[in-house]
Amino acid sequence: MILMTALTETAEKIKNMEIRGAGKIARSAAEAMKEEALSIKTKDIKEFNRRMEDAYNILYSTRPTAVSLPNALRAVMRYKADTVEDAKTAIAANADAFISGSENAVKKIGEIGAHRIKDGDTIMTHCNSSAAFAIFETAYRQGKDINVIATETRPRQQGYVTVDFLQKSGIPTTLILDSAVRYTMKKVDLVIVGADAVTVNGSLVNKVGTSQVALAANEARVGFVCAAETYKFSPRTLFGEMVEIEERDPTEVLCNELRAKWPNLKISNPAFDITPHKYIDMIITEIGAISPEMAYWVIKDKLGWELEEAAEASMRGCDDEN
Amino acid sequence: MILMTALTETAEKIKNMEIRGAGKIARSAAEAMKEEALSIKTKDIKEFNRRMEDAYNILYSTRPTAVSLPNALRAVMRYKADTVEDAKTAIAANADAFISGSENAVKKIGEIGAHRIKDGDTIMTHCNSSAAFAIFETAYRQGKDINVIATETRPRQQGYVTVDFLQKSGIPTTLILDSAVRYTMKKVDLVIVGADAVTVNGSLVNKVGTSQVALAANEARVGFVCAAETYKFSPRTLFGEMVEIEERDPTEVLCNELRAKWPNLKISNPAFDITPHKYIDMIITEIGAISPEMAYWVIKDKLGWELEEAAEASMRGCDDEN
Amino acid sequence: MILMTALTETAEKIKNMEIRGAGKIARSAAEAMKEEALSIKTKDIKEFNRRMEDAYNILYSTRPTAVSLPNALRAVMRYKADTVEDAKTAIAANADAFISGSENAVKKIGEIGAHRIKDGDTIMTHCNSSAAFAIFETAYRQGKDINVIATETRPRQQGYVTVDFLQKSGIPTTLILDSAVRYTMKKVDLVIVGADAVTVNGSLVNKVGTSQVALAANEARVGFVCAAETYKFSPRTLFGEMVEIEERDPTEVLCNELRAKWPNLKISNPAFDITPHKYIDMIITEIGAISPEMAYWVIKDKLGWELEEAAEASMRGCDDEN
Amino acid sequence: MILMTALTETAEKIKNMEIRGAGKIARSAAEAMKEEALSIKTKDIKEFNRRMEDAYNILYSTRPTAVSLPNALRAVMRYKADTVEDAKTAIAANADAFISGSENAVKKIGEIGAHRIKDGDTIMTHCNSSAAFAIFETAYRQGKDINVIATETRPRQQGYVTVDFLQKSGIPTTLILDSAVRYTMKKVDLVIVGADAVTVNGSLVNKVGTSQVALAANEARVGFVCAAETYKFSPRTLFGEMVEIEERDPTEVLCNELRAKWPNLKISNPAFDITPHKYIDMIITEIGAISPEMAYWVIKDKLGWELEEAAEASMRGCDDEN
Amino acid sequence: MILMTALTETAEKIKNMEIRGAGKIARSAAEAMKEEALSIKTKDIKEFNRRMEDAYNILYSTRPTAVSLPNALRAVMRYKADTVEDAKTAIAANADAFISGSENAVKKIGEIGAHRIKDGDTIMTHCNSSAAFAIFETAYRQGKDINVIATETRPRQQGYVTVDFLQKSGIPTTLILDSAVRYTMKKVDLVIVGADAVTVNGSLVNKVGTSQVALAANEARVGFVCAAETYKFSPRTLFGEMVEIEERDPTEVLCNELRAKWPNLKISNPAFDITPHKYIDMIITEIGAISPEMAYWVIKDKLGWELEEAAEASMRGCDDEN
Amino acid sequence: MILMTALTETAEKIKNMEIRGAGKIARSAAEAMKEEALSIKTKDIKEFNRRMEDAYNILYSTRPTAVSLPNALRAVMRYKADTVEDAKTAIAANADAFISGSENAVKKIGEIGAHRIKDGDTIMTHCNSSAAFAIFETAYRQGKDINVIATETRPRQQGYVTVDFLQKSGIPTTLILDSAVRYTMKKVDLVIVGADAVTVNGSLVNKVGTSQVALAANEARVGFVCAAETYKFSPRTLFGEMVEIEERDPTEVLCNELRAKWPNLKISNPAFDITPHKYIDMIITEIGAISPEMAYWVIKDKLGWELEEAAEASMRGCDDEN
Repeated sequence: MILMTALTETAEKIKNMEIRGAGKIARSAAEAMKEEALSIKTKDIKEFNRRMEDAYNILYSTRPTAVSLPNALRAVMRYKADTVEDAKTAIAANADAFISGSENAVKKIGEIGAHRIKDGDTIMTHCNSSAAFAIFETAYRQGKDINVIATETRPRQQGYVTVDFLQKSGIPTTLILDSAVRYTMKKVDLVIVGADAVTVNGSLVNKVGTSQVALAANEARVGFVCAAETYKFSPRTLFGEMVEIEERDPTEVLCNELRAKWPNLKISNPAFDITPHKYIDMIITEIGAISPEMAYWVIKDKLGWELEEAAEASMRGCDDEN
Repeated sequence: MILMTALTETAEKIKNMEIRGAGKIARSAAEAMKEEALSIKTKDIKEFNRRMEDAYNILYSTRPTAVSLPNALRAVMRYKADTVEDAKTAIAANADAFISGSENAVKKIGEIGAHRIKDGDTIMTHCNSSAAFAIFETAYRQGKDINVIATETRPRQQGYVTVDFLQKSGIPTTLILDSAVRYTMKKVDLVIVGADAVTVNGSLVNKVGTSQVALAANEARVGFVCAAETYKFSPRTLFGEMVEIEERDPTEVLCNELRAKWPNLKISNPAFDITPHKYIDMIITEIGAISPEMAYWVIKDKLGWELEEAAEASMRGCDDEN
Repeated sequence: MILMTALTETAEKIKNMEIRGAGKIARSAAEAMKEEALSIKTKDIKEFNRRMEDAYNILYSTRPTAVSLPNALRAVMRYKADTVEDAKTAIAANADAFISGSENAVKKIGEIGAHRIKDGDTIMTHCNSSAAFAIFETAYRQGKDINVIATETRPRQQGYVTVDFLQKSGIPTTLILDSAVRYTMKKVDLVIVGADAVTVNGSLVNKVGTSQVALAANEARVGFVCAAETYKFSPRTLFGEMVEIEERDPTEVLCNELRAKWPNLKISNPAFDITPHKYIDMIITEIGAISPEMAYWVIKDKLGWELEEAAEASMRGCDDEN
Repeated sequence: MILMTALTETAEKIKNMEIRGAGKIARSAAEAMKEEALSIKTKDIKEFNRRMEDAYNILYSTRPTAVSLPNALRAVMRYKADTVEDAKTAIAANADAFISGSENAVKKIGEIGAHRIKDGDTIMTHCNSSAAFAIFETAYRQGKDINVIATETRPRQQGYVTVDFLQKSGIPTTLILDSAVRYTMKKVDLVIVGADAVTVNGSLVNKVGTSQVALAANEARVGFVCAAETYKFSPRTLFGEMVEIEERDPTEVLCNELRAKWPNLKISNPAFDITPHKYIDMIITEIGAISPEMAYWVIKDKLGWELEEAAEASMRGCDDEN
Repeated sequence: MILMTALTETAEKIKNMEIRGAGKIARSAAEAMKEEALSIKTKDIKEFNRRMEDAYNILYSTRPTAVSLPNALRAVMRYKADTVEDAKTAIAANADAFISGSENAVKKIGEIGAHRIKDGDTIMTHCNSSAAFAIFETAYRQGKDINVIATETRPRQQGYVTVDFLQKSGIPTTLILDSAVRYTMKKVDLVIVGADAVTVNGSLVNKVGTSQVALAANEARVGFVCAAETYKFSPRTLFGEMVEIEERDPTEVLCNELRAKWPNLKISNPAFDITPHKYIDMIITEIGAISPEMAYWVIKDKLGWELEEAAEASMRGCDDEN
Repeated sequence: MILMTALTETAEKIKNMEIRGAGKIARSAAEAMKEEALSIKTKDIKEFNRRMEDAYNILYSTRPTAVSLPNALRAVMRYKADTVEDAKTAIAANADAFISGSENAVKKIGEIGAHRIKDGDTIMTHCNSSAAFAIFETAYRQGKDINVIATETRPRQQGYVTVDFLQKSGIPTTLILDSAVRYTMKKVDLVIVGADAVTVNGSLVNKVGTSQVALAANEARVGFVCAAETYKFSPRTLFGEMVEIEERDPTEVLCNELRAKWPNLKISNPAFDITPHKYIDMIITEIGAISPEMAYWVIKDKLGWELEEAAEASMRGCDDEN
């Protein structure tokens, strides 16, 4: 009989997307790992470790392609202990540190990133990113006169989320279409976007359209800054793995009526695209502003991944896809 | 008393956009000029010329920024005659030649452009263009196995017009979003787009988004071809004038409900953008494939504009804008 | 009964490649047309014209993809005459003018091109080109201290022809491999190559490898000059046609012994590649130095092609390929 | 005995630089040719022609590298006449047309170029150019709110001439150093410069530093426009000749005191540099806005040069340099 | 009562620029910190630490934007001690190590950088840099035949300092104007410049004009090397802060007489510009040759900054600006 | 008397190239060092260390420019021990670890690199590389449908080695000439090459021609991946040293008969060229996929070099070249 523990509950919620968003997934998983550790009754450290491994695997397998999830699990599991008591203490400390670090990350990114904005700047953004929001809001509260240009971000119009946030904050906002990016770029001083993931060689995986914003910025000598919590850095890319670009539901692109009218029409609806690091001036993380080429170092030294574990993570992910 | 002649009727229809589309406007204007000439009763060539000038001005002032209109009028007015009879003959011949030339232009462009397409090619297009359609259809009817990727083309989804045309023709078609252009470009062999206007230095004025398609094509060494009837070449740019980029109605971008929700939100909705000639490999016209840098020659030698007239046209246009 | 006239003899020799090389083919064809015209007995100008058309078609069909052949034939056929006598005079004059113009073209290109070379220059060339040779020799005879770097030009080592010519002329020469082009480019002041054909938008069709020499020159801000007689400008590209890149015999690439060893190995052996006009600073022709973007004008105004004839030529070519 | 005629006087003044500036040289030469023609007494057209050839040569040899001089002389000499009377009439008409055309050229360029400037634009310029001045002044008088950034233009500080002109005209002006061009470029909407010469492939010969302004503009997607009267288009480049870059007096760079301090120091002081056409969006001439790649056409069709004459001019120039 | 201690004296001298130059400021500050530590009488480690903190703040606030100052102070303050005696020992050792390391840095950079220079090389430099000098001198003393092109470096002609150094060393030197950089670049094998600061993402802050030298080098595939002691790496940029580009006195640009003549003329005189890392091949530091993208690592691992301290430093700097 | 020990024997074999290939040289040297250590009889640690230093120097001097040799020696010599026994144990462990790590490196690179290959990909490679082979084979064995395009790689046709390997493995292969790289690039999805060495700033030293493959890939937005064991990272470049490009025997380029025919012909036959890091997307090493800009970190942290030792190595190398 399998009891519905806190862990399996969290696993379930991540799987069915009740819990969503890179930050929330990561923090819930860390919390669940901590609770699991504290609830284990055994005094045998080997058994304890084995059960924590099981917990890791259960949570990992819920969404193996979510980049923040393995980073959260790994952060919690970086303990060395001879007794169960010590292990519990270490795990709880790790989980708490990860959670508060993650909660503070956006705020810190806001402070750091606000330095990149000068009074009078016009900033373009694409899709919606809470880290980018934190930067806009911090700069605005510092009294800087800024102007944010938000793209519509088809197909799901996440630009409206950005507009809503900015309008509520009182920040002057202009909405443009995705097709107007290059036309509008001449008036832009800086581009700031968020990240879905950052790869080992500093490329940015983000909402489709991001890479053409970057291309147009590069053509016009406009700075392009990415705001990304370090848990967005993908350990599996250390093992060479490429980030899978999900093809989303065609109904996001075309209504069913028109799809019926053109039964032979193919629709391609990629969720993300890849912005090469040569178009990215800087990544703002909670551990400071870095050049994208340092991503390998972040994954190794900051997030603590070794090649073998990245490979294993990669393998687990692959199994799960079957 | 002003009689409602055929000329004023046509002028009225162009003004209120009953007659629309670059080709139709041009041909109606040429036809109206011919009818006007034939209906003039005087035998005095000077008076005749003066009345034709008036006719020219009436039609010109209906839509001074429409690039095909002055080209049509100028084509008709290229006559030299000592008698009214000779003038009428020349004008009628000019008008007929312009009209049939214009009607055949798209077909010829189709034939010429089809040469650029190889069996198995994947071609991307943006917005809808009858000249580009002619190329696709000709190539397809030649038995070439092609695949056309059509962008949605926000805000007015002209991509649907393209999809509809292609699907009816049986040509395999894929629809993508404007934000997916750079992501998709790696699979593309050739880009073919139409033109709203071509400037004196070979830049392309076309539906907003075109220039970022061109930028992404250039980045990936993908050929970028423009299909344009010669009456799309803008004589006013000879006089240095820049093509005005119209800001269209914001409701095309955002529905009224959301506009009401965010009363301070600005919306920018440019109709066109400018693709610099360095990103254009070739313009397919009815007089052959040319390099965009030859545009000055087309305007001077083919369309028959002199600087002074271009300047005058420019001035008329300016007055009209008041 | 078909008599073996001079015309059919020339046609035969062009077909079986006894007569080869763009210049020789063109001049032989012009000469054959002239002789044909002079040998026609009729006094009926219509019949005469018809027979000249036949002659044109016979010669044209020998090698429809050779760019100099239609240019030579067209040059001869640009006559207007009411009597056979006048026609013969005109055709003879056209043929003579074409032949001497063609013979002098290389010499003139030598004089013009020599201006581009400064004392002390190191010049890279690829494949072998008599027009380029003329430039090297003229500059050297003017007392300029030059140094020519010749690429080997696999698969047929045409670089040896270049080396032989230069060594006989006493010009200091260095031989490099095709793979050493970019490495060597830093020491190069100027690149000069010949042309197999020039397209309507100024792209250069030349021995495979040319385009990567141009790319490496462009990367290092080294001038890239093409030397091309105007009869190398392709009229069929006016009609949009693409220049076919011939796949040559794989034995040029790999000996039969090794091909037998690897029976499943595919070999690709393209004869030419296309250098886009953006990498070409200037084309040196016998009518002066021009920018590649003027190619349309050369084909129309200098070579006298109209779209319709280019299209026809294109069609003939196509038929012939069946 | 050699009489001091008006012609030799003008020749003398051009030689010793009493008459200077491309426009003044050209107009003085045209005037002197006209006066010479009118003063010739013979009725023998052959002798007349011979004497006009002599006059041509005398003036030509004064400053064979000045681009406007051969263009002025050629414009005057484009006559065909059977009698001396007719020849005089034609020459006088040619000279008058050239002079008034030349005088009006700057004004026309001002009108045409002003179209390129939008209200609120910041324009950078380098060195001083009356054609560029005309554009600034026309735009300013049209009520456009403009701001001109003038570079100092070492070594002779021609930027001060620009500043003086602009300040007298009331146009807001900012002075920067030549080393601050790239730093400042981010605030610039458009670059407008004049021309010393335009070559056959559309490259711009202008005051040293121009090409790095163009490079920085290109890097930042800022338009780069050249204002040039057509008599600045160099006929000798048609013959392949390169524009000689004059090395000017080192004392312009370093005072004698410091030169004495460092006796082994070499100083390089090139007067001009070459801006490649790929960095030039448009040339504004008195015959309209054109793409730089059309330069060959301007030299051939507008200025009336044939290769042979350009070659001859080139030869004369070379002789003269000995 | 505040006694005029060695510390306040040094602080005063840094403030009034009696002590200037990145190296001297840094070493004086380190020395003052050491003396301060040794002079403190207390045995209470907490009080000692507090007083050292005060010393840190006093010195820091003298020139908060000088990049070497916080690096020197931080190097000295990296001590951990339980007793005042131990603290004094550690601080003295830190200060001595920093001072001798800093003194040796230039020499080491000279040795490392000399490897980049080949016999016969022509090297361009901008402004004056003792680290670059060390490279030139080392290479020259190794018997390499080199040639240095020095730019004038307006407005303060620091190029003269470079010329003077090179001429005294016997190194062949050519002086050019800042406007002749692109013209001259074709003859250059390598560019070597110093640094005012290096930012966290590897951008170079250096004398205005540096970035356009880099741009022109990049266009011509000429290597661009920066010579920078590690204390030039800016810790505040870790916190996202941008390096402020100082606007210097306009009289450096224009004499007072001319400023009086043009009272409305604005003058912009930026001291520095930013060279993006993509134009920098390598930074030569005393810890080896590195890629600019490693700057984050240098600041963290070599200079020992943590984000929090960088932020604090940033804050202090900001306060100070009020 | 010098005994022929295992060490001197290995040294001899490396010198006379009986032992060749970066991996074999490195492993033989490590093995020889281990055997040498085990065979030393003394109990005096100082003497032991001195003798190991001697062994290091003997092996080092055999091929001072071979990049893997110093890395192997350094790996073995990273021991700290107070007794000879401990030293022997450490050295043996180091040598064994290096040897097995090196043997496994290619396999790991194969696994990691195979992730970069998608089903259906066409991959271009240049020269022959066992690391690249491992990637191809791994991907192929994973069932991916791949197609490898191998360049001939003149002068020694190493492309045949690649073809042979691929054909034996059953992998579909196409052979092209080095001159056909840019022509073929449009059909390529990914380039994978090996490495002779990687420099401190991430540039790739590899078989001549590699850099033009990279240039053509970059122009067409095709990914360029390098497969390199970490012992290929050059420690001497840390000290600024440039990788010497060996000029190989001219008979590789031209047969003796032709050399005799052209006695004045120079032949340049560089063995390698340098691919700048900006054209390299990623380096696949046995410690994961990294960005080339991390090379400094690999040399310092992974291979354990300090500047001083790199300098010393550099010095030794230099001495040796005399």
